[in-house]
Amino acid sequence: MSQQKEINTILDDVLNANRIYANYFGDKNTLALPPSRELAILTCMDARLDPAKFLGIKEGEAHVIRNAGGRASDDAIRSLIISHKLLGTKTWLVIHHSNCGMQTFNDSVMRDLLRESLSTAQLSEEGWKNVTQDGGSIAADFVPFLSFTDLEKSVRDDLYRIRNHPLVNPKVTIYGFIYQVETGKLISVPF
Amino acid sequence: MSQQKEINTILDDVLNANRIYANYFGDKNTLALPPSRELAILTCMDARLDPAKFLGIKEGEAHVIRNAGGRASDDAIRSLIISHKLLGTKTWLVIHHSNCGMQTFNDSVMRDLLRESLSTAQLSEEGWKNVTQDGGSIAADFVPFLSFTDLEKSVRDDLYRIRNHPLVNPKVTIYGFIYQVETGKLISVPF
Repeated sequence: MSQQKEINTILDDVLNANRIYANYFGDKNTLALPPSRELAILTCMDARLDPAKFLGIKEGEAHVIRNAGGRASDDAIRSLIISHKLLGTKTWLVIHHSNCGMQTFNDSVMRDLLRESLSTAQLSEEGWKNVTQDGGSIAADFVPFLSFTDLEKSVRDDLYRIRNHPLVNPKVTIYGFIYQVETGKLISVPF
Repeated sequence: MSQQKEINTILDDVLNANRIYANYFGDKNTLALPPSRELAILTCMDARLDPAKFLGIKEGEAHVIRNAGGRASDDAIRSLIISHKLLGTKTWLVIHHSNCGMQTFNDSVMRDLLRESLSTAQLSEEGWKNVTQDGGSIAADFVPFLSFTDLEKSVRDDLYRIRNHPLVNPKVTIYGFIYQVETGKLISVPF
């Protein structure tokens, strides 16, 4: 009951915010489908990152692709191919960030946790531990979670994978960055 | 030369915007890694969507996962599992939108286009056509592009896939929506 009430509050909050947004929508209904800056960004789902804000991007200007880690997964590459082939983006930015959750675990840790329980685990000095043992799944053994240890290397690996993908046009320009959650600054990663 | 100049301008613009953002960073360096609203959003990469704005979400509050279509791909589900299991999100929103590029093609069209050329195609009344035939790749035959025709159905399909995934905790609450690019409004999709 208490948890349900909390969840209803979360939903009410975003729906109220959306009513305000729609009331002040202005002329955004005239925006074209292709991004006006011909720009696509691949970055992490991390809650502390607001790429539109930290890159100064307004509605209509750029594609934004986000997943756990900002990794160049098959699905991120699917999205980038659609972005260039059908919607004309010519510049892509790959942005990972400091203090990323993807640096706190690896596939083996995640698979052991999920085999025991699907509920949220806790991170202590001894590493990740399940709070409950309420039944998990071995399905995690078949999922690559794409965690990483070296932040700069993860950016370079992803730039390399995108640059060498058979469906990526060599004419697309690609840059790599690290976003510092401590300062809000973008640091270039040479490739 | 001219294209290189344009691309440098795009990069200069985002880097200048980032300097301004970092200068006014305030106390955002104190934000915790887990999303404070225990909320994750899965939506489309479309340039006209700024989910932080249209849902009233500030830095630190919610995970944002985005790909072409906002589809419940394996990679989106990987991200959602990490979001709940390691970072404690309890409510997930799946948001597709009107006038989506994913409704303008299908796998067969995309594969034919990419087999001929990797460069950007054009959409006319007769459908998608390549402008150049500068050499493509048959690699597209092995990629599911996850296009769709029925917008409400694509939301329901994705909710169904997430809800029934063996690694998704049944305790997570999931809602589906359509974002109207014409009005900025969120429309609930019953599931």
